Amino acid sequence: MKGLDLEKIISEGFISYSNNLAIIPPVGELLFKDPPGDVHIKYGYIINDKYYVIKIASGFPNNNKIGIPNSDGMMLLFNQDTGKPAAILLDEGYLTDVRTAVAGMICAKQFSNKINMIGIIGTGIQARLQLQYLKNITKCREVLVWGRSLNHSKDYKREMEQIGFDVSISSTVNKLCSSCNLIILATSSTEPILFKEDLKSGVHLTALGADTPKKRELGPGVFSMADIIIADSISQCEIRGDISYAIKSGEIDEKRVVELGNVLENSVLGRRTKEQITIAGLTGVAVQDLKIASAIFESYLEKNNEF
Amino acid sequence: MKGLDLEKIISEGFISYSNNLAIIPPVGELLFKDPPGDVHIKYGYIINDKYYVIKIASGFPNNNKIGIPNSDGMMLLFNQDTGKPAAILLDEGYLTDVRTAVAGMICAKQFSNKINMIGIIGTGIQARLQLQYLKNITKCREVLVWGRSLNHSKDYKREMEQIGFDVSISSTVNKLCSSCNLIILATSSTEPILFKEDLKSGVHLTALGADTPKKRELGPGVFSMADIIIADSISQCEIRGDISYAIKSGEIDEKRVVELGNVLENSVLGRRTKEQITIAGLTGVAVQDLKIASAIFESYLEKNNEF
Repeated sequence: MKGLDLEKIISEGFISYSNNLAIIPPVGELLFKDPPGDVHIKYGYIINDKYYVIKIASGFPNNNKIGIPNSDGMMLLFNQDTGKPAAILLDEGYLTDVRTAVAGMICAKQFSNKINMIGIIGTGIQARLQLQYLKNITKCREVLVWGRSLNHSKDYKREMEQIGFDVSISSTVNKLCSSCNLIILATSSTEPILFKEDLKSGVHLTALGADTPKKRELGPGVFSMADIIIADSISQCEIRGDISYAIKSGEIDEKRVVELGNVLENSVLGRRTKEQITIAGLTGVAVQDLKIASAIFESYLEKNNEF
Repeated sequence: MKGLDLEKIISEGFISYSNNLAIIPPVGELLFKDPPGDVHIKYGYIINDKYYVIKIASGFPNNNKIGIPNSDGMMLLFNQDTGKPAAILLDEGYLTDVRTAVAGMICAKQFSNKINMIGIIGTGIQARLQLQYLKNITKCREVLVWGRSLNHSKDYKREMEQIGFDVSISSTVNKLCSSCNLIILATSSTEPILFKEDLKSGVHLTALGADTPKKRELGPGVFSMADIIIADSISQCEIRGDISYAIKSGEIDEKRVVELGNVLENSVLGRRTKEQITIAGLTGVAVQDLKIASAIFESYLEKNNEF
């Protein structure tokens, strides 16, 4: 990833997407019951770009029991001119993790006040990557973490301290929220974890764990407290993730949701006062997969003179 | 493919599908305008089977102009238990061609009267494979072919005579229909080629070229002449291919369509008299891709003792 300006690359993807220059069909989905698992197929292209992408990602929560990672994935690039395969990136989900971390970083940069303490909810891979990428956009190294497992929280604290953060474990989400003005939710929860009582003035929340219709991190009424609501993809967030719950329940009108790519082009759509509460809901868009896979592959070709 | 009983393998797939043992979401689709192209993603699994399949197929009709095949494709198999990739078959569309040919063969065997002359409409790869596979189920070697290009028809005649058929070129579809009691349509036409006036008593038609909402081979009223209408997938044929036109126009009631897997299990649903006209519309179902890819991969593992 060295030498790639991922913030720029992924931001350009969001901007193309919000300008309707990307063709991104609804996410394909396969669900399994025994053992439980879900597979997502995200695919699409930017008009007149070089490649189209088909990204396959799976989550099988019982894998850990047999000693292998729960998530897996690959990204396939094809030439837009001919349909011929260009590259199969067997990244096992790593590039999805990275493009998600970059989207979190972009939201933090765009919507946060000056960050005084970072709140991280969740202790998994994405919770780690979020901090790692936040280093690029803030000097704040103070972190409060909350996770359901104290042991996982301790592991998280130890590892993140190794990369330069000062991490404390919060006993409740509410306490975490009372101290942090940037809060990132990166869990695979299907029940709300953060409630409207937890919100305080000036906070920015990025909820990126809920990427399916069943997953959910934010409680009823949270979005009604927000001054600005941001989605990576409005059409996708109507169906998946936290924003979909708020729209379906009538808590917010869909028209209140602005799209990330539009804000990146026109920052007046973003935070205007220090007091505002801003909430971003990210479900992950194929345009991110397209941009990161294309960048990696082009960089590979360049290094190997395979143009 | 040697040693694999593809008729049995693909038939089992259709039967599982029609017994609702297969989870097959709607086909994913990407369309390109300049240059024109379409990409289909067919995916799914049979419950409690070993793998799930994701099949990617593309057609870029201008590829021939730069000397490469118009169609391409690959099949990916993943383990149902873990989501881990099992195999990536870079078959360039070959296995899709074969499973389609096998489906045509299955329909001919199930629905035709004793075949006295085979009519082939189309002169491409699929028109070739259909004859090749029909050898397995009929002794008839008399063929009439019709194609839009006389040169292509001549090429077809020459090649098919090399594998033991006696091929004549028909000057019109109508003449072809007056002599043949098994007719296979294997074109990429978007306009009807065969009309209701062309039909005669006792014929079986398999239309397999039209696999998208825009493609079409059979004219208005053709299905209303049929005694039995067969689809490989009723839900898919409501959206794609010739049957979809007949349903949308109100020419036939959807309830008249029987599913191939149901007939294969219960042949009373098939032809009952020599006079009946039977028409099968095939759009290609992911269960065929799953079955052929699984069989090829398992056979590979067996040969290489990689169990």
